[in-house]
Order: sequence, then structure tokens, then C-alpha cells
Amino acid sequence: MGTVSAPKQDRSRATRQRLLEAAVECLAEHGWAGSTVSVVAERAGVSRGAAQHHFRTREDLFTAAVEYVAEQRLTALRNALVPVQLISGPARTYGAVQELVGLFTGPLFRAALQLWIAATNEEQLRARVTDLETRVGREVHRMAVELLGADERRPGVRETVQGFLDMARGLGLANLLTDDSARRERVVAHWEGVLRELLERPTS
Amino acid sequence: MGTVSAPKQDRSRATRQRLLEAAVECLAEHGWAGSTVSVVAERAGVSRGAAQHHFRTREDLFTAAVEYVAEQRLTALRNALVPVQLISGPARTYGAVQELVGLFTGPLFRAALQLWIAATNEEQLRARVTDLETRVGREVHRMAVELLGADERRPGVRETVQGFLDMARGLGLANLLTDDSARRERVVAHWEGVLRELLERPTS
Repeated sequence: MGTVSAPKQDRSRATRQRLLEAAVECLAEHGWAGSTVSVVAERAGVSRGAAQHHFRTREDLFTAAVEYVAEQRLTALRNALVPVQLISGPARTYGAVQELVGLFTGPLFRAALQLWIAATNEEQLRARVTDLETRVGREVHRMAVELLGADERRPGVRETVQGFLDMARGLGLANLLTDDSARRERVVAHWEGVLRELLERPTS
Repeated sequence: MGTVSAPKQDRSRATRQRLLEAAVECLAEHGWAGSTVSVVAERAGVSRGAAQHHFRTREDLFTAAVEYVAEQRLTALRNALVPVQLISGPARTYGAVQELVGLFTGPLFRAALQLWIAATNEEQLRARVTDLETRVGREVHRMAVELLGADERRPGVRETVQGFLDMARGLGLANLLTDDSARRERVVAHWEGVLRELLERPTS
């Protein structure tokens, strides 16, 4: 580190971040087939050489990109924890459900989905994406438990939370080709009540 | 029709069917980027010219292929209706839930998913896939209502069924990169009980 000046380090970090953001946008809009290091470099306003200095391969770039945005979304979810935890009763479940469903309907989910599909067809990508998803999935589950104030020691509560996250993932998929928000709102409003009832139910 | 002999028609129909089956396998295994009319023709043991006689474009072939398998799965679901409707109580819900979740975890779902993702990036494919999905979605919902013996005139029942189908879709997605069957079985067993309770609940 000794020879690298602080402003130079900052510039390098900023370049890296621009590349990651451009990569996620590119993947969400054009899919794996239309996403190359060159296309991303141009979108980020970075030379191809500079891009390759940061990411040696296409797989490196896109795995890092999805990880970066996943981290951003997890941070946003973590920040939502405090205000949601301060409220209680129906309003808390409402806030938690909105945050969780929102995770699966934004541009991150679209980008992640493109990467999953690419990973089913590209052996090189598969192991990395699987690792990333295991990590993100575990963290999303942990935060869902906290947001909902769910007590997983009680029988069935773990499966209640997991099934609800599966539903949120399915709602995200239903939003892929058309705007599904009107239907989604009705489904979510109904299941939010079911979820609250299941989590508050006295242990039998 | 007058000049075409019956055996020739049969052969033509058999060729078309082989092409459709090969197209679905190809799409599920290699994704859109790796799926061309030539690759499918070779897999089906049909000449490229014969394949193009049946399907003018790549979009024609793959939309027809997904429609064909969707129709097959809907037929299987229709056939499952009668035995499931003959049973009642918990065993009926169990049978219905297994049939419905199975729809989203087989090779058809994988092929359909590849087509959806391709459709987000290919304008030509988008309108057709959207139409197909609207039609299939409506039919799956209608059959889910029948399989589960759900009374949609009661408030909330429509949203109960829709949310459950979203969960099944999310479970299918979770099975894309890794074998998720152990976790899925636990989640499904739990939610099957919830679903039964929601559908049997007396109107308040």
C-alpha cells in the first residue's frame, strides 16, 4: 500500500464501483448473452484495460456485481430493521412484509435472475453463483426472522418464514414480463394477515 | 388436405412432435443462447430443411415448444383432477398440493424459465411469451381451485390460492441451481396444513 497515494486509491475504488453498477444494469437489461466486459466498460465510461485491471474475466465481473448489489440490498434491509423493530403489532408485520417483498421485485432481483439462468448453462459460473446464493439466502432468512419478530424455537415458525420468502420469490418472478403490481398488492395484503396470525398464534 | 395421404400426415405430425420435444430439452439444458433451429433439428434427427418447413423462425419453434409441453402438463393436471376429486379431507389437499408444486419443479418449468428470461431481452419473443403465460397462468389457477375444492365466492379464497401458486413458483426457482427437495418437503408439508385450514375455515 505504501506507494499508492490516498487519492489514487479513492479513484480506483470509485472506478470499481462504477463498473459494478454498470454491470448490474447491463445484466438486468440485456441478459448474460449481451453482457461483456467491453459493454460494461463503455457504459461505465472506463477504458477496457482499466476494466480488466479490476476484473480479469467476465465471470469475475458479474459475480462481483451481483454480490455488490446484494450487499447493498442487505444493508438497506438492515437499515429497515431498526424502524420496523420500533413498531409493534399489525404495523410491524406490514412494514416487514413490504420490505421483504420489495427485495424480490426490484432491479437486483432481475439482475440476480439473469445470473442464475446464465449459471445453469455455464459451468464456470455455477459454483460461484451457488455459493453467493447460499450466503444471501441465509442472510435474508435471518433478517426476515428479525423483521417479523418471529420466534423460530416454536414449531413450524421456521417453515412459515421460509414459505413466505418462497412466495415473495414467486411474486418477483411473476413480475418479470409484465407489471404484476395490482395483483401482487391484493395477494400480499391477504397473506400478510395470514402470516401475522401464524406468527402470533399461541403454541398448542 | 385432399392430396396428402394419411400416412404422410402422420409422419409430418410425428416429425413436428419430435422437434418440439427436442426444443424443450435443448432450452432447459442449454438456454436460449445455445438453442438454435439447427441444434434442435440435429437432436431430433430431422434435416434442417424439414425443421424449417415446420417452423419458419427460432421464435416460432421455441414458443410452440413451450406451448406444447405446457399443454402436456395441463393435460396431466386435468387427469389428476378426477382421482384427487374422489378423495376428501386432508388426503385431497395433500394430493392437490403435490400435483401443483410438481408443476413448478419439473423440466417444463426449467424450459419455461429459460424462455421467460430470453423474452426479457428479445422484443420479438416478449409479446408471445406474455400471451402464453397469461393463458397458462389462468388455466393453472382454474385447475388449482378445482383440485383444492376451493370456494372462490368466499372472501380471501382467491388470494389464498394465488399466493400458494406464487409460493410454488418460488419453490421452483429455489430448485434451479441446487437440489432443494429436502427443504422443499418440509416447507410444503407445513404450508399444506395452513392451506387446508384457510380453505376449510367457516366464513366469519
